[in-house]
Amino acid sequence: MQVVDTSTSPHAKIRSVPIESVKLEDGFWAPRQRILRERTLPTQYMLCEETGRISNFRRASGKEAGSFQGYFFNDSDVYKWIEAAAFSLTVEPDGELRDLVERVVDDVAAAQDEDGYLDTYFAFGRKKERWTNLQEMHELYCHGHMFQAAIALYRSTGARKLLDVACRAADNIVNIFGPGKRQGTPGHPEIEMALVELYRTTGKRAYLETAKALLDNRGRGIVGGGKNLIDHKQFRELEEIVGHSVRSLYLNCGATDIYMETGEEALWGALDRLWISLAEKRIYVTGGAGARYDGEAFGVDFELPNAMAYAETCAAIANVMWNWRMFLATGDAKYVDVLEGAIYNGALSGISLDGKHYFYVNPLGDRGDHRRQEWFPCACCPPNISRLLASLQGYAYGVSEREVWVNLYVQSRLQVKLTKAINIEQRTEYPWQGEVAFVIEPEAEADFGLNMRVPGWCGMVGLELNGKRLETQIGPNRFIALRRTWSAGDVVRLSLYMPVERIESNPRVDASLGRIALRRGPLIYCLEQIDNRDFDVWDLVVPTGAFLETGWEPNLLNGVMVIRGEGLAIDSDWSDRRLYRPIQAGRGARRVKFMAIPYYAWANREPGPMTIWVGSQGAPI
Amino acid sequence: MQVVDTSTSPHAKIRSVPIESVKLEDGFWAPRQRILRERTLPTQYMLCEETGRISNFRRASGKEAGSFQGYFFNDSDVYKWIEAAAFSLTVEPDGELRDLVERVVDDVAAAQDEDGYLDTYFAFGRKKERWTNLQEMHELYCHGHMFQAAIALYRSTGARKLLDVACRAADNIVNIFGPGKRQGTPGHPEIEMALVELYRTTGKRAYLETAKALLDNRGRGIVGGGKNLIDHKQFRELEEIVGHSVRSLYLNCGATDIYMETGEEALWGALDRLWISLAEKRIYVTGGAGARYDGEAFGVDFELPNAMAYAETCAAIANVMWNWRMFLATGDAKYVDVLEGAIYNGALSGISLDGKHYFYVNPLGDRGDHRRQEWFPCACCPPNISRLLASLQGYAYGVSEREVWVNLYVQSRLQVKLTKAINIEQRTEYPWQGEVAFVIEPEAEADFGLNMRVPGWCGMVGLELNGKRLETQIGPNRFIALRRTWSAGDVVRLSLYMPVERIESNPRVDASLGRIALRRGPLIYCLEQIDNRDFDVWDLVVPTGAFLETGWEPNLLNGVMVIRGEGLAIDSDWSDRRLYRPIQAGRGARRVKFMAIPYYAWANREPGPMTIWVGSQGAPI
Repeated sequence: MQVVDTSTSPHAKIRSVPIESVKLEDGFWAPRQRILRERTLPTQYMLCEETGRISNFRRASGKEAGSFQGYFFNDSDVYKWIEAAAFSLTVEPDGELRDLVERVVDDVAAAQDEDGYLDTYFAFGRKKERWTNLQEMHELYCHGHMFQAAIALYRSTGARKLLDVACRAADNIVNIFGPGKRQGTPGHPEIEMALVELYRTTGKRAYLETAKALLDNRGRGIVGGGKNLIDHKQFRELEEIVGHSVRSLYLNCGATDIYMETGEEALWGALDRLWISLAEKRIYVTGGAGARYDGEAFGVDFELPNAMAYAETCAAIANVMWNWRMFLATGDAKYVDVLEGAIYNGALSGISLDGKHYFYVNPLGDRGDHRRQEWFPCACCPPNISRLLASLQGYAYGVSEREVWVNLYVQSRLQVKLTKAINIEQRTEYPWQGEVAFVIEPEAEADFGLNMRVPGWCGMVGLELNGKRLETQIGPNRFIALRRTWSAGDVVRLSLYMPVERIESNPRVDASLGRIALRRGPLIYCLEQIDNRDFDVWDLVVPTGAFLETGWEPNLLNGVMVIRGEGLAIDSDWSDRRLYRPIQAGRGARRVKFMAIPYYAWANREPGPMTIWVGSQGAPI
Repeated sequence: MQVVDTSTSPHAKIRSVPIESVKLEDGFWAPRQRILRERTLPTQYMLCEETGRISNFRRASGKEAGSFQGYFFNDSDVYKWIEAAAFSLTVEPDGELRDLVERVVDDVAAAQDEDGYLDTYFAFGRKKERWTNLQEMHELYCHGHMFQAAIALYRSTGARKLLDVACRAADNIVNIFGPGKRQGTPGHPEIEMALVELYRTTGKRAYLETAKALLDNRGRGIVGGGKNLIDHKQFRELEEIVGHSVRSLYLNCGATDIYMETGEEALWGALDRLWISLAEKRIYVTGGAGARYDGEAFGVDFELPNAMAYAETCAAIANVMWNWRMFLATGDAKYVDVLEGAIYNGALSGISLDGKHYFYVNPLGDRGDHRRQEWFPCACCPPNISRLLASLQGYAYGVSEREVWVNLYVQSRLQVKLTKAINIEQRTEYPWQGEVAFVIEPEAEADFGLNMRVPGWCGMVGLELNGKRLETQIGPNRFIALRRTWSAGDVVRLSLYMPVERIESNPRVDASLGRIALRRGPLIYCLEQIDNRDFDVWDLVVPTGAFLETGWEPNLLNGVMVIRGEGLAIDSDWSDRRLYRPIQAGRGARRVKFMAIPYYAWANREPGPMTIWVGSQGAPI
């Protein structure tokens, strides 16, 4: 099964491969998926029960007494959990989980109205209010998540029950908001991509057309949502990525899905502009998005505060989702760069190593106050990270007519069919090392291209075929294309040079001016106080010439490569609570040894200050 | 005349002195007041005419045909202009200006309704809408500015016409919103301080009580204004300074005025908390306030971006106004520190050297785009800076029963009466030099204290009395108190050590982390591209040990002390439009000579990048 199935999309350059065609055998993601199955999905289910999220369905159908409980969009958390469970079942059959999902689906299905409508908040005497406040109430959003859950479950297990519910609900929406009907658009986008995926699943074109109608209606003053809801302009006229970051990125997902079906150039023009706005001016080095607490929104260009970053987990996930679609549309590696960075950093930081604690907000620096929670009243992030982790192998590869695209490096086995069935084994210790070997096993000799992504962080590449060094030319879209007739046992070795890098940001980013971030491969590093006890991590300066070394720590944070180095700590005492003061005369910089860990792993031990960006400027005068 | 007359306020520790009792004879402020009289006030009058601001009054009274023109709060700009003109007339009689003011007052007076109401937007068939939208329409705000103009004119020239208009309007407001009447509170505070001042002028207690009622009604859900309008909590429960910065600070002015009349402790408790919140966490090094464009609002603690600072000119002025009142209430020098910093930096930057161009927004760094304008559709700032400059000498001194308080250093002559009439001549080249001499001339021997403020920026002080060195002990409120029996010709010499200082900000301020600002005396310095042509001013690093020297430049920017030094420029080329990238290997720092000018004087020459904060971190490892 695919999360986004572009196999029949006329304007998609790349077809995604089924999740189940990729078997993860690595030490980084596979253990996380095991934790997801064993701890995350069960605890999220229990929390959905305990907080009334599942009861709401039973109550709406009369199975259980009581009224609606929680936020009006709580249905969506249950749907995201079902979707994540469906992905997980694809990877690892689990009778118990499957039974659980079926019971939840029964509860969901029973809550559907005869006309197809399904939103439990609008049962309980609120039927008259249905579809009356598209701007604020998340009916279309919740429906969209239901469709995605249904599609995933159908593709994963073949179970049609929820898909039938989804189709009835979608038919109802087509009847109300379809082309030529009532003009509407949701305050919180999501349904657009869901309707396109339902079109891909069922072939019913009205779903696609309704998705397009909802998109076309934005910015026409219909729901009066303004800039935060990306309703201030028509989509095709957007120049900058603005507004609520998750809404904005979900909307872009839907628009990209529509583009892959229609090939409309004006749509692509807007998507291209929005992506440039994001990638050149409004994204965090972690792949996080959304600078502002106010409105959970993108800031203006270069407004990227660190400690005050919002960078919602859902926004990093949405970044993965959108960039995946942009890649499927084009085959351009630049989108996978953003996707990879967001997965390894800004999204993965959203869940603890124990799989049971979450960040909603992912700052790039903290003074020791920001800690993971077991759940949130608005719990969009926890089941969203589950969806992503459970389907992760689906992003590793892509195929086109006669090419296999390797997007992510991860020890795994791929089975795909081009003209012939092909097995590819990928051997690597990525993300800790940049060496990758591919063992090609076609069922018979096969002519196809192996396109291997050269990550944006990688400046030097080595390539060998069956022990012989090859010249590499990295093209503008940064895939190395190796086209030939492959025989069983052919081995390709790719060496991605992976040094520790000092990253600086464009100097227009106030918050990081004169500072650097440490990066190695796709991983952004940070310093936590617990590893650096004799100075405040915010006081560290890493001079340009400082020597940095890496070291594997098998017992730290489930195994991480750390970065160690020597820097200067410029101690400061601000207990006088002054906001500005003369720098202290004679205040010295003292040499310290420091240690940095991957950002995704922070806040898994005792509380304390953390920072990604450290001081760097300066040289002797 | 005083702007804030605390001579009968039972809970004010300090009485302000009349503007006309201080004669400026300096080279810094006196020339600015001349430019104000000769260019600023005439051009602002003409712009008020050209934009219909004065016509609105004539139209409302039927003197002229036509409908309301411009923003609904445009009356207030005319009032601020009258107020500024009144201050100016106090300092320098000018028959032409006085005639002009009288004509404008005639137009204003004619527009008043029989019941006392006066807001020209709500003439023109909008009478029914009066007082129906206190949250958004600025009726109370405009009335407040009218009262302040009337008081200033009355105190300055004795003219009662506008004062009578004001009293009729205030009586109308007392009848509608006074204690026991309709509960209301303005979306934009201003009227509170105006009503208290009208009480001080007329002795009519109902004005004070109505001011208090309007304050008490905040945060009770009456106008539903929320946090941006500081209507989310009752005033006495506020913990942090939040919301629209000008509204917030104007509200604090009113609350402080009420406190000085009532002595209510709960009110003081809130004011004290708000001041700490401002001074320790939410003010710019320029004395500017309001970090955010969105809502023109304060940010959260330490949210103080530089290039994206909002720091509206009006907010810096409001900072002066509020801190002046806090000082009058307490005699604590810490408030004058903020006042002085705001005057010399964040407020003064709001007007060009030619007196005809203005900033609405005062960023602390810029890439060359931000330029002064001749006027704004929302023109609150230009006449506000006029009010401040025209009354500036009124802030220089204060008196209490047997003490003269010297708040600001400026070459001037003061005439006050304590038990006896006293003349004090202050000789200084402040703000360019820290040497100050006071020549005391009482009419007869007089016993009083001369309290001289030791500015917060000053760490070392010398004091001489009639040529003899005195021991100085700087008390916790940082006034040197010299109490004795003074004879004619006594000379006090105060030396405020005024080196160039490198200022750092609390490291929680992301935007300035690892950077320094140059300060000398009360002046914050900045670098403009025009003075530093061979490197980008944003690329400058000033190492800790770098030598800095000052130099007087009589022909530059009307005469300024510049700071010169040697630093490092770490050149960067970001034309690749990347947001993040590895620092360039071998990229060197090169020695450069730099020159900094006072921040207030920037953007008076050709456009180009400017920055207050420059790099500082780093030392050899």
